[in-house]
Amino acid sequence: MDDLKLGIMGSGQLGWMMIQEGRKLPVKFGVMDSGEKGSAAAICDFYMGPNDYRKFVDECDFVTYEFENVRKDGLEYADEQDKLRPGLLPVNLKKDRSLEKNYFVSGGFPTAPFTVAETTSEARRSCRDFGKSVIKYTSGGYDGKGQIYVRNEDDIEKVEIHGKCIVEELIDFDCEISVIGSRDSSGKIVMHTPSFNYNQSGILAYNYAPFPNRKAMEITSRLLSRLEYVGVIGVEFFLKGDHVMINEFAPRVHNTGHHTLSGSSISQFEQHVRTVLDLPVPDANLIRPSGIVNIIGRGLDSDLLNRLLSNSGTRVYWYGKNDARRKRKMGHVNLLAETVDELREKISSTMELVYPDGLENYL
Amino acid sequence: MDDLKLGIMGSGQLGWMMIQEGRKLPVKFGVMDSGEKGSAAAICDFYMGPNDYRKFVDECDFVTYEFENVRKDGLEYADEQDKLRPGLLPVNLKKDRSLEKNYFVSGGFPTAPFTVAETTSEARRSCRDFGKSVIKYTSGGYDGKGQIYVRNEDDIEKVEIHGKCIVEELIDFDCEISVIGSRDSSGKIVMHTPSFNYNQSGILAYNYAPFPNRKAMEITSRLLSRLEYVGVIGVEFFLKGDHVMINEFAPRVHNTGHHTLSGSSISQFEQHVRTVLDLPVPDANLIRPSGIVNIIGRGLDSDLLNRLLSNSGTRVYWYGKNDARRKRKMGHVNLLAETVDELREKISSTMELVYPDGLENYL
Repeated sequence: MDDLKLGIMGSGQLGWMMIQEGRKLPVKFGVMDSGEKGSAAAICDFYMGPNDYRKFVDECDFVTYEFENVRKDGLEYADEQDKLRPGLLPVNLKKDRSLEKNYFVSGGFPTAPFTVAETTSEARRSCRDFGKSVIKYTSGGYDGKGQIYVRNEDDIEKVEIHGKCIVEELIDFDCEISVIGSRDSSGKIVMHTPSFNYNQSGILAYNYAPFPNRKAMEITSRLLSRLEYVGVIGVEFFLKGDHVMINEFAPRVHNTGHHTLSGSSISQFEQHVRTVLDLPVPDANLIRPSGIVNIIGRGLDSDLLNRLLSNSGTRVYWYGKNDARRKRKMGHVNLLAETVDELREKISSTMELVYPDGLENYL
Repeated sequence: MDDLKLGIMGSGQLGWMMIQEGRKLPVKFGVMDSGEKGSAAAICDFYMGPNDYRKFVDECDFVTYEFENVRKDGLEYADEQDKLRPGLLPVNLKKDRSLEKNYFVSGGFPTAPFTVAETTSEARRSCRDFGKSVIKYTSGGYDGKGQIYVRNEDDIEKVEIHGKCIVEELIDFDCEISVIGSRDSSGKIVMHTPSFNYNQSGILAYNYAPFPNRKAMEITSRLLSRLEYVGVIGVEFFLKGDHVMINEFAPRVHNTGHHTLSGSSISQFEQHVRTVLDLPVPDANLIRPSGIVNIIGRGLDSDLLNRLLSNSGTRVYWYGKNDARRKRKMGHVNLLAETVDELREKISSTMELVYPDGLENYL
C-alpha cells in the first residue's frame, strides 16, 4: 500500500506529538500554518503556507486541525472535499462560546447555569442574579485568558464588557475532570479512563488518571455521537457531589490527555491519527496510573532535566519553543507509578522541582 | 539550555527509532550515511554524506552508530575527538568474529567450543572433531547470511571455504535468549529483563519478555564493564539446561530489544540516546509482558494493517522501505498482554496473519 497522507492545520506541540506518535505507521504528515512555524513544522514530511490550502488539501487523504483558530478558507475547502475530520461543526461551535453552550443546552447536557450578555448592564444584572459568577468573552481566550471573576458587589460595579459575553454561575465545584475519547467514521466510540485535572489561573498545572466517573463518560459518548464526530475529543467537566456538569470540549487532542503517552495501551495522538485515517482503534486501556506535570513559563536547564529524568518511568517532552514567556506551555513531564497515591507523591515532588518559587510566579 | 546534538552513523530503522524515541527530549539528531539514504535520513534534523565526517563530528556533542559497517575514518575521527559512544573497541571486535570470540575466551565468558580455520582442510578437520558444526566467515554476514551448517560426513566433504572462518560446535541448544542493557560513563549499568527469541534461518521472527535468566544478566553486566562500554548493547545467549553460552553481541540497539517500545518503563532507543548523552536512566522495568513479530520479506496491504491494528495494545512500526525482498526486515509489530501465555497466543495468531503461506516463503 502507498503511505497514507494526513494534513495537520496548525503547527504547535499537539501536531508535533501527533507526528511523533503516528510516524511508526505508514503515514506521511503534512503541516499547514498561517503564522510563525511551530514545533510540528520542523518534523513534518511536507509543509505549506496558508495560501496553498487547496494544494495542501488535495495532497492529503484527510485533514485535521490541532488548533481551533486556523484559517476558515482551508477548513471549508477541506470540508467540501470530504476530507476534514473531526469536521466543521465542532470547530465552528468553538468560535463562539454561546454557540457551544447553547449546543449543550439543546442536547440536554448538564452545564453550569449561564446567560449571554451583550452590554455591561446585562452582564451586571446576571452577576447579581447568580451571586458569584465568571464572565467569559464568547470568542478568543484560552488557558484562562480573558476571564473575569465576580464574587461580590464591588466586583460587580467594576464589570465593564466590550462585546458579547457568557456570564456563568461560579460553581464552587469539588474538582475538574476530563475525558479523552474518540469516535470513528462507523460510529464506534473508544474512551480513556477520566483524569483528575488541577488548574491554576485557568491553566492546567498537572493531571492524572485513573479518576473514574461513569456519568462523564456517558456524556462524552453522547456528545461524540451527536456531533457525528470523527477523531479524538477532550471534554472537561466540573464535579460537585454527584453532580457532573460539562464545562467545555476541545475538538482535538487535549493537554489533559498527554498522560496517555505513557501508561496507556494507546496514546491520544496515535488514537487520533488512526481514527481520522479510518484505521482501527480496538480500545484504550490504562495499564498503570499515569500523570503529567506541565512545564509552564520557564526554560529547561541541564540540572532540572537531570533531576526529572532520574525519576523511574519519567519521560520529558520538550516542545522546542524559544521564548519562555509566563503562562506559556514549554513542555511536560510524564509520570508513572504503581498506585495513585505513589503517583500523587511523584506529581508533588515534580511540581517542586519545576516550580521552586511556586507555580504562581510562572503564570 | 541549548539542544544537545547527537550524530548517528548509519540511517536504517534502528536510527529511525532512535530519533522517534529521542525526539521528545531537547535533542537534535544528525544522520551520516555512506550509501543509500535509509529511514532515519528522512526524519533527522540534519544529514551529511560520508565525506563530511569531520564537519559532522564537529557539529555533534556525541556520535553513535546504528550499524557496524560504517566508514572507519568517521568512527576514528569521532573517537579522536572523544565523542564516539560506545567507542571503537566494540565495533572493531565486530569486524572479525575471531576477535569477538577470542575476546569472550580471554575474559572467561562461556561460549560454544570453536576453532579458527583459514583453509578448507583445517575447516573440515574441525568439523570432524566437533561432529556437528556451523561455519561462519569471520567478517561480513548478518541475519544468518553466509553460515554453513555441517551435520554429517557428506556435509563435511562439501565444505569449501574462501577466507578465514570460525568453525563452531553446533550446540543442540534449548533456546536463544538475549539481554538488552546499558552502561553509562560513570559505570552504572541498567538492564532489561531477558527475552526469548525465535529465529528461523538465522533471522529473528519473534521474541518476547519476560524470560528471566540471572546468569545471562551477570554476563552482560560483566561484558559491559570489561568493554568500558557507554550506550545500549544487545547480547545473545544459547541456553542448554542450566548452561548459558554467549553467542554474540551487537554494539548498538538490537532487534531483540524492540519489545521495549511498549510494555517497558523506557525503550532501548531512549535508553541509548540518554546514556550516550550523559542523561540519567534510573532503571528499565517491564510493566507488562511484551513481544514483537518481525515483518520480513513482504509489503503491507491495508487488509493486513487493519487486522494487526485491531488487536488491543498492538503497535505497527513500518520502516518505510520500498523493496520487500526476501529476508529483508520491513517492519515489526509490538504486542502486549496481561500474561505470557496470552502473549504467546497473540504472537502465534500474528505470525499467521503476517505469514499466511508460512514464514519460510518469506526468507
